[in-house]
Amino acid sequence: MSQESSERTEGDLRNTGMSLRHERTWDYELDRIVDAVEERDAGTVGLQFPEGLKRRAPRVADDLRELLPEDVNVLISGQPCYGACDLDTEVMRRTDVFVHFGHSPMKESEKIIYVPLFSNVEVTPIMEESLEELADPDEDPAVGLVTTAQHMNKFDEMRSWLEERDYEVEVRRGDDRLTHEGQVLGCNYASADVDADQILYVGGGKFHPLGLAMEHPDKKVIIADPVNNVVKIADTEKFMKQRYASVHKAMDAEEWGVIYCTKIGQGRWEKAQEIVENNENAYLLTMDEVTPDRLTNFGLDAYVNTGCPRITTDDGPQFKQPMLTPGEYEIAVGNKDLEDLEFDTFHGTW
Amino acid sequence: MSQESSERTEGDLRNTGMSLRHERTWDYELDRIVDAVEERDAGTVGLQFPEGLKRRAPRVADDLRELLPEDVNVLISGQPCYGACDLDTEVMRRTDVFVHFGHSPMKESEKIIYVPLFSNVEVTPIMEESLEELADPDEDPAVGLVTTAQHMNKFDEMRSWLEERDYEVEVRRGDDRLTHEGQVLGCNYASADVDADQILYVGGGKFHPLGLAMEHPDKKVIIADPVNNVVKIADTEKFMKQRYASVHKAMDAEEWGVIYCTKIGQGRWEKAQEIVENNENAYLLTMDEVTPDRLTNFGLDAYVNTGCPRITTDDGPQFKQPMLTPGEYEIAVGNKDLEDLEFDTFHGTW
Repeated sequence: MSQESSERTEGDLRNTGMSLRHERTWDYELDRIVDAVEERDAGTVGLQFPEGLKRRAPRVADDLRELLPEDVNVLISGQPCYGACDLDTEVMRRTDVFVHFGHSPMKESEKIIYVPLFSNVEVTPIMEESLEELADPDEDPAVGLVTTAQHMNKFDEMRSWLEERDYEVEVRRGDDRLTHEGQVLGCNYASADVDADQILYVGGGKFHPLGLAMEHPDKKVIIADPVNNVVKIADTEKFMKQRYASVHKAMDAEEWGVIYCTKIGQGRWEKAQEIVENNENAYLLTMDEVTPDRLTNFGLDAYVNTGCPRITTDDGPQFKQPMLTPGEYEIAVGNKDLEDLEFDTFHGTW
Repeated sequence: MSQESSERTEGDLRNTGMSLRHERTWDYELDRIVDAVEERDAGTVGLQFPEGLKRRAPRVADDLRELLPEDVNVLISGQPCYGACDLDTEVMRRTDVFVHFGHSPMKESEKIIYVPLFSNVEVTPIMEESLEELADPDEDPAVGLVTTAQHMNKFDEMRSWLEERDYEVEVRRGDDRLTHEGQVLGCNYASADVDADQILYVGGGKFHPLGLAMEHPDKKVIIADPVNNVVKIADTEKFMKQRYASVHKAMDAEEWGVIYCTKIGQGRWEKAQEIVENNENAYLLTMDEVTPDRLTNFGLDAYVNTGCPRITTDDGPQFKQPMLTPGEYEIAVGNKDLEDLEFDTFHGTW
């Protein structure tokens, strides 16, 4: 019916460094899947991959078919997938074993096998380069260390490497939404709530460190990207300007669409309800994917997205009407001051 | 994440004449909804509108809020909707009363209230003009008469009008998928399986008569469009050329994606299974919306869509790889001859 364009904004959720052209070897843990199929005497296996790895799905299906009894059906989810918050519940319901690749568990469940897909890229060469941006350990030894699920396998190595260079490495697990110590998600940077003015992000892409810097504007966020082989300082200026512009534009809105996202790990029902109950010109809209066309169809003046905050902050400029986070909405309708603007984060599981 | 473009092909499912700019009055049957809420002591009401009428949703919600007790929540589905085959099951699950506007029932269910939204446009002036295209009743009096759910309220008037002009009007109900005698759907033209060489379609848009003409290439399909005030002959040449081109292109495909659509009225599981079981280079992909981006991600050579046939035939050119109907697939892989190419129709309910 309608074409989803391939234009990507700088913070596009697909820019996680997982969709690189060069071949990388992933461990799909096929034995674990085969064991589960046997154990559960499963007739159908569902596979879900993040966007950047969907291209590998047919090969993984081939390998599984080789290993599994002939009468086991393999289904591949064709729905977009941007995190463990974004499980294909339809495929989950229809299959006996459901395998979610590329993300660490947001919540353990008997039905789901999470296969994390750790990157095998070396991290210390780019960390060496990042020393130029880190403070001298004699002056400011405290460094917060964070990474994504893909590089979690090298986390201890990263920590030791910094400690050997006299840094005091500050790490914490964050909250329930995060599986590992030092792990960040696009919507949750609680693991960076540490006593350090500088945070070293070791991982692919700018998507995560941009969120991190928006959530912690008081900290210097250094990006050591071993996938693209660059060191950078996260710069949120462009994004923050866009946020202020959207909030200002939305101040004139008369009618609001309040988006409740039906994705399993992205629903904030109470938040959406609260807004609608307190604004007679607000309408509750439910959807899974939040796209410009879906909103424009309703002809409302502005939208509040209670689902994934990164669609709001990173893809916002693609939308024809202003779309705000719940916190930004409170500013736009005058319940809070503009100084209260902060990054929208997501907590809890599902 | 990704932007759905607003480009519309000629046969776009949204071109049903329901999205005209001028104001029209619809009967939303609010009393029937209010009665159901009271009867079921409902706490939540879900509303689903087709694309061209989503803009009316906030006004309908306003009117309902006026009529309903204050503690009843009104939710509006933000998912795309292209027919009664396309119920928002997520909203249906989350609400006590679920109202589907703009289509006639595909299957009756206690949970669902179908509000058909009949057009109040006059049909006889454009039928008068269509006489120029119809055969003289003295020579060939047999005329098949069909229309869409929106104009069903005028069906008896249409029939009488033709009979008064000495035509023999051939009508039938079609099959289970159709509610009314003479009704057509984008995917089902069984009501035109009548003993007449000419079919008069009275209704808005070209979408339905194009499908009708593809399904019945031996009949002359005359369009009397009272919404856009035009009379035309349905011309499928462009579409048929595209279909042949896609089939030819797909003949070189090594790897196939077989789409199983999870929309409630669009699933053909056995068909999808059959293809995958008989082709070791075919992979079963599940999704609700079938869009170019979702397919391209998998990097396969060609796709078979067992879901809505109109996405395949009408939106096909927007897709980067050839996408075929199940019948066209059989031709592309050599199981059938090119002469066997026929329009893919959908039968049964859900």
